[in-house]
Amino acid sequence: MLNRFAKEKSDFLSKKDKSRKGSIDKGIIRLVSLINSKNDYYTTSSCAGRIVLLEMHSSKKYECHWILAKHEKVKFNEIFNALKNHKSKNEVWLKQQPVILHVACMDIEASKMLLESAQKVFKRSGIISIKENKVMLEVIGSEHLETLIKKGRIMPDEEYLKELVKRANYNFGENRKKIGKFERLLQNIL
Amino acid sequence: MLNRFAKEKSDFLSKKDKSRKGSIDKGIIRLVSLINSKNDYYTTSSCAGRIVLLEMHSSKKYECHWILAKHEKVKFNEIFNALKNHKSKNEVWLKQQPVILHVACMDIEASKMLLESAQKVFKRSGIISIKENKVMLEVIGSEHLETLIKKGRIMPDEEYLKELVKRANYNFGENRKKIGKFERLLQNIL
Repeated sequence: MLNRFAKEKSDFLSKKDKSRKGSIDKGIIRLVSLINSKNDYYTTSSCAGRIVLLEMHSSKKYECHWILAKHEKVKFNEIFNALKNHKSKNEVWLKQQPVILHVACMDIEASKMLLESAQKVFKRSGIISIKENKVMLEVIGSEHLETLIKKGRIMPDEEYLKELVKRANYNFGENRKKIGKFERLLQNIL
Repeated sequence: MLNRFAKEKSDFLSKKDKSRKGSIDKGIIRLVSLINSKNDYYTTSSCAGRIVLLEMHSSKKYECHWILAKHEKVKFNEIFNALKNHKSKNEVWLKQQPVILHVACMDIEASKMLLESAQKVFKRSGIISIKENKVMLEVIGSEHLETLIKKGRIMPDEEYLKELVKRANYNFGENRKKIGKFERLLQNIL
């Protein structure tokens, strides 16, 4: 008979993907599969990192509208055209967000082991909840770019916007390399 | 006789403040004192939030130079003059960083209690290490602004730079309000 954790894992992984995107990012599939292949762990959500344009309806995160969301590097023209074609006086922010991965762990010991490995690559990682039946670990990257980019007009000039896109793409690439590094690390220890 | 945690707490809190600033931020003193007044906890580092200008010598965080670091709201002219007077071709970033607080907790139970309270205000908080003698909790805010602002020239025009400074100050204020909220919450439950 399955133990409680194994039962929850099996139930969870057989459910439909409820993310906006509806599927696991290509850049993180192997890492997610590796973790899910181990009895002590299963992933509950993951994003390999993304570059987004967000229209803010207020300062609250949940009152916003996604103009663009890319789970890969972006081209200057994609960003520029999305900004140009978006008619609104609301603030628009450019955000490059790093990898984020939530892992359910069987117990404290299992979470501690995974946390210590994760921190070798993603030092911001931490345990975000401890329940009787599972411990939740958040693995999160540290490369960020997050700035106001439009308010009525596109605020950076073309050269500046190109630099911002270049930095967002650079950070995105660094973040991807770290996912690979973490995957290789786990292959050796899990 | 003191137990091991109480002994470490007493040793730690009697040491000299080793932060860059050399003292606890005014905006977080009451919260830090409240936590340190409880037997199960002590704070090992804290920052109430800040607005900084950083010159990057490379993409590595430790290879950078602080042009300006303010633990309060900034004026447009402070930022503008600091940028104008700084002669270097290296990238300069403007970063508004939220509160960060590290708390040593006596055991898992104590850390779980504080984590669950912290997450009501600072949802990114997490346990960052579990050792035999203590559990470390990181309380961290989520308001961020982090962008490239100079590369040879000051890249935003004056109106744009004013908007960035305004947003950095707004976020800083929101972050401060949350510190107060967390303090009141802890007064009721600790």
